[in-house]
Amino acid sequence: MNDCEYMNVSISLARATLGQTSPNPSVGAVVVKDGRLVGTGVHMKAGTPHAEVHAIKAAGSAAKGADMYVTLEPCSHHGKTPPCADLIIEAGIKKVFVATLDPNPLVAGKGIDKLTSAGIEVEVGLCKEEALQLNEKFFHFIQTNTPFVTIKAGISLDGKIAAKSGDSKWITSPESRQDVHQLRHEHDGILVGINTILQDNPLLTTRRPRGGINPIRIVLDTELKIPVSANVIQDCSAQTIIFTGSQFNATKKRELESQGVTIISQNSAEISLKEVLHTLGERDILSVLVEGGSEIHASFIEEEAFQQIITYMAPKIIGGREAIPFIGGAGPELVKLGKQLRFTAVEKVGPDIKITAKPLIEEETE
Amino acid sequence: MNDCEYMNVSISLARATLGQTSPNPSVGAVVVKDGRLVGTGVHMKAGTPHAEVHAIKAAGSAAKGADMYVTLEPCSHHGKTPPCADLIIEAGIKKVFVATLDPNPLVAGKGIDKLTSAGIEVEVGLCKEEALQLNEKFFHFIQTNTPFVTIKAGISLDGKIAAKSGDSKWITSPESRQDVHQLRHEHDGILVGINTILQDNPLLTTRRPRGGINPIRIVLDTELKIPVSANVIQDCSAQTIIFTGSQFNATKKRELESQGVTIISQNSAEISLKEVLHTLGERDILSVLVEGGSEIHASFIEEEAFQQIITYMAPKIIGGREAIPFIGGAGPELVKLGKQLRFTAVEKVGPDIKITAKPLIEEETE
Repeated sequence: MNDCEYMNVSISLARATLGQTSPNPSVGAVVVKDGRLVGTGVHMKAGTPHAEVHAIKAAGSAAKGADMYVTLEPCSHHGKTPPCADLIIEAGIKKVFVATLDPNPLVAGKGIDKLTSAGIEVEVGLCKEEALQLNEKFFHFIQTNTPFVTIKAGISLDGKIAAKSGDSKWITSPESRQDVHQLRHEHDGILVGINTILQDNPLLTTRRPRGGINPIRIVLDTELKIPVSANVIQDCSAQTIIFTGSQFNATKKRELESQGVTIISQNSAEISLKEVLHTLGERDILSVLVEGGSEIHASFIEEEAFQQIITYMAPKIIGGREAIPFIGGAGPELVKLGKQLRFTAVEKVGPDIKITAKPLIEEETE
Repeated sequence: MNDCEYMNVSISLARATLGQTSPNPSVGAVVVKDGRLVGTGVHMKAGTPHAEVHAIKAAGSAAKGADMYVTLEPCSHHGKTPPCADLIIEAGIKKVFVATLDPNPLVAGKGIDKLTSAGIEVEVGLCKEEALQLNEKFFHFIQTNTPFVTIKAGISLDGKIAAKSGDSKWITSPESRQDVHQLRHEHDGILVGINTILQDNPLLTTRRPRGGINPIRIVLDTELKIPVSANVIQDCSAQTIIFTGSQFNATKKRELESQGVTIISQNSAEISLKEVLHTLGERDILSVLVEGGSEIHASFIEEEAFQQIITYMAPKIIGGREAIPFIGGAGPELVKLGKQLRFTAVEKVGPDIKITAKPLIEEETE
């Protein structure tokens, strides 16, 4: 095993915890001495020990003179747990490989400085791309104070999310629908528009074979039209937040609040997406999965308020001028005014194709 | 090299001639003796020698006692060229590997019979799937007397083929648009609706870096609205056939005919697609590439008059309720009434994804 392979073990450990560490990042660490793995650790939940603590504890006395491979810069400050840099120094680790620096500019590099001041050799950047991608939601949040937004849809080959009647059951395969539950597990929030609630009355919970973490349900409902009988109101397995504009029925609001729902009213008649994302950020919601409908998708696209689009494309033609398109909205007059993306992954999921796209960043164009 | 690898050489040879042998299939052959390749051949153009003739000629006296790997059953009848089975017998070939039988039920197996009667060992079915796929257009035509139909479109990730204004330049990358010229080269006909002519005024010719064969241009134009100035009328590099319904201006028809255009009027007010395909089959057009627009695509889908769909999907969101969808038409009320397909290939082409889908055949479902 070379350095890169050991770091990949740490990355694999971290990847297995995606969704369960928020608002903390997913971090893995391994300790290696004389060519033998002597300790492994992973951060499992906010408020509990960091990956380095577990790995050093597992290594015991073998940590002295060993190398550590950790996916994120060890912390140097007292948070809910003591600084990992101190522990690494105390344990007598000789060299630390760090995949990525802390994304918080206020503390970035401070953990490294502490280690090198103590005479520990540090190498930064091993498997950097993989580690950045692993914690892309966390990094985005730390840098913007707003959630990382993934727009997700099950679509037909002809780009529809429902037939003209609104019927959408089922476009994609059971395998794709199962994969969506992993996406829900990996996001702190799940957001839909009121029309999706009225049309499909979804639960919006995470149903993975081995259980999962329910995201907070977020509904954009300008005029508070949501029925009290809706699943997202009656089902108590996850919290629900409803955003409204300034015009709504106050009695309806109290009635919903009495069901345990949080209602956040904005000052303008229309809901501002930017304000929604800002509010969610203040509530430590690091990531949001947007699950429809057509017009909500269009709003996020038009305002460029998204970091990722994931489509599960079924080998099916729905057809119809009036079928519901993946992206509605007013739309531009010219193709060149559309949003330019780049495909970052294309995978088979059962009979379907899972396509991941991200906004094209300017410097990436030729 | 084993038997399968030698047959793959023959298949590669045949693949390189796709588009240039119609109405004949693409066929390749190699002759192998004592573990050495001693002859290769490929059918290059209808009316010229078959692959076996070239391969045996190249092998010369080495053909005696050699093995032949040929992608299609050698012919046993006198056509424009003498029967290949006779030549193989005369040359003293010892064993013949045949990938697929002749698709014509009237002659299928007769070539094999002739060879075995002459004491030649014959093995049928080596690399059968690849060979069937190679000549799928030819096989479809022989079995149905109608052309193999490929629906092709450049679409955005959200399934649009144009913005709401009709603008469609450019959705896909130069690499994808170049790939389309290979598709045109490989089809005998290219078909569009009158709206595509009016909107885009395309040439519909094959422009490959090393030249290519122009398909016959076919326009569905119910009321003969096409302007005489249209590129497909004025450009003489390919033949143009226009289908109309029963109602059209006779003067306009004569005017167009004087430009060398063939006009085929059907007896009903609306154009019947089935009849179009039947007529094209009678004219030895083995394959048709359907290139839009939205409503034409929908007609072919609704009538299940297609064998393949190829989409070049660009990493782009166009958006808009009223943007032009890949598939228009009336569309079904329910998703389950859509057309079920299967994805047969997914490839990267430049920044785009090329997705090939075919109708799901009933016995393929579980």
